[in-house]
Amino acid sequence: MSTVSPPRSDDLLLRMRVEAFMADYVHCLDTDQLEAWPEFFTEDARYRVCTRDNFDRRLPLSVMSCSGRGMFRDRISALRTANVFEPHVYCHVIGALRILGSSPGRVETESNFQVARTMVDGTMSIFACGRSLDTVSIQGEALKLSERIVVLDSRQIDTLLVIPL
Amino acid sequence: MSTVSPPRSDDLLLRMRVEAFMADYVHCLDTDQLEAWPEFFTEDARYRVCTRDNFDRRLPLSVMSCSGRGMFRDRISALRTANVFEPHVYCHVIGALRILGSSPGRVETESNFQVARTMVDGTMSIFACGRSLDTVSIQGEALKLSERIVVLDSRQIDTLLVIPL
Amino acid sequence: MSTVSPPRSDDLLLRMRVEAFMADYVHCLDTDQLEAWPEFFTEDARYRVCTRDNFDRRLPLSVMSCSGRGMFRDRISALRTANVFEPHVYCHVIGALRILGSSPGRVETESNFQVARTMVDGTMSIFACGRSLDTVSIQGEALKLSERIVVLDSRQIDTLLVIPL
Repeated sequence: MSTVSPPRSDDLLLRMRVEAFMADYVHCLDTDQLEAWPEFFTEDARYRVCTRDNFDRRLPLSVMSCSGRGMFRDRISALRTANVFEPHVYCHVIGALRILGSSPGRVETESNFQVARTMVDGTMSIFACGRSLDTVSIQGEALKLSERIVVLDSRQIDTLLVIPL
Repeated sequence: MSTVSPPRSDDLLLRMRVEAFMADYVHCLDTDQLEAWPEFFTEDARYRVCTRDNFDRRLPLSVMSCSGRGMFRDRISALRTANVFEPHVYCHVIGALRILGSSPGRVETESNFQVARTMVDGTMSIFACGRSLDTVSIQGEALKLSERIVVLDSRQIDTLLVIPL
Repeated sequence: MSTVSPPRSDDLLLRMRVEAFMADYVHCLDTDQLEAWPEFFTEDARYRVCTRDNFDRRLPLSVMSCSGRGMFRDRISALRTANVFEPHVYCHVIGALRILGSSPGRVETESNFQVARTMVDGTMSIFACGRSLDTVSIQGEALKLSERIVVLDSRQIDTLLVIPL
């Protein structure tokens, strides 16, 4: 905490851009536009969902893991064609962004999230919560994720975890 | 996503103003200052709460619908005098704002929300979640909603939906 | 609402600084770095957790109360050494910040929050929700809380409320 400098105008612009980008990211997931999901990542991006326990102990185990945008696309194709699951919708709410570091063309952030899931019968519950560690690459006017690590608070993974977080 | 330009300083100011306005809006509801609720809208504003299913299929069915500020006031009067319901309180959390478009004097936004409801016995649960599509009119220093569409993730409507969202 | 002036650039910077500070605050709690918690407060800070009912009726009753940073440290020591409780983790999400007032070196804010708790068996639920009223003192580049009042929506206090909010 004591190492955090007060933000300057440039930082504010960057923060706002990242916040707007993350809002677009969760909107893509929540509105089931999954085919657009890989477009939020760089070509060689890494994506990983893991439990807090494994993350804290630096264990490489992941609940879900993708490396390279082709693998992201495969995952969505598989989800669309092969998986059978009960219909449900997600609603992500992201907490305030923490900027962990930045260098020209790149910013590292962390933010809490909670996902509410609504089943077809109207039942609502918290489906997942935790935080994400995101490395955002600034490519001119576009932002892309070069790494996203989703750290789940729960050790138990719901069998319905078929849609990316 | 690819069509989003990086925000400029003016955009930032506008975004901040809308965020502050929406924070005031939910504070009004969460603190039961419902008589002030119509004041957040323009005189001829439209307000609608609908299910995601009906919204996606462009069906006109609404769970709640008001047109014109007089109707907003009537709704609150009715709620205060006629309805009998179990005491409970709401806590809205709004996700990051997406700016869908803006023109002089007007901005269109979208944001996710989750509402936690606490009953008198202390039971807490997610009461409603989804997103809102808001058209905000800029009238000098004041902001007013000229349209607000609340799209609920759930198809089942809780019979306790007596307070606006 | 009608008394809120549109924010200027200085206000934006201040708002951003407070948002970043609050994000650091909840990160400290959510990652169990409780020994750093007192550092977020001024030396003579007051901290209080109370129910909405008691707050609205201006009753002095508190669920938890600390006055002066020494007392904050004692609380954490007690928690680390004496308390035995079931392992669980918290995930705070804070809603949009409302700036209630500011003067040189000081800003008063209000924000909603929801805390999801995950038990060791993976059960997730809303553990607490409500709002906090924070007085933030600006000491050069550092921000510190000189007062924090957490107003819980629930009247029932979970016996597991051992970690600060």
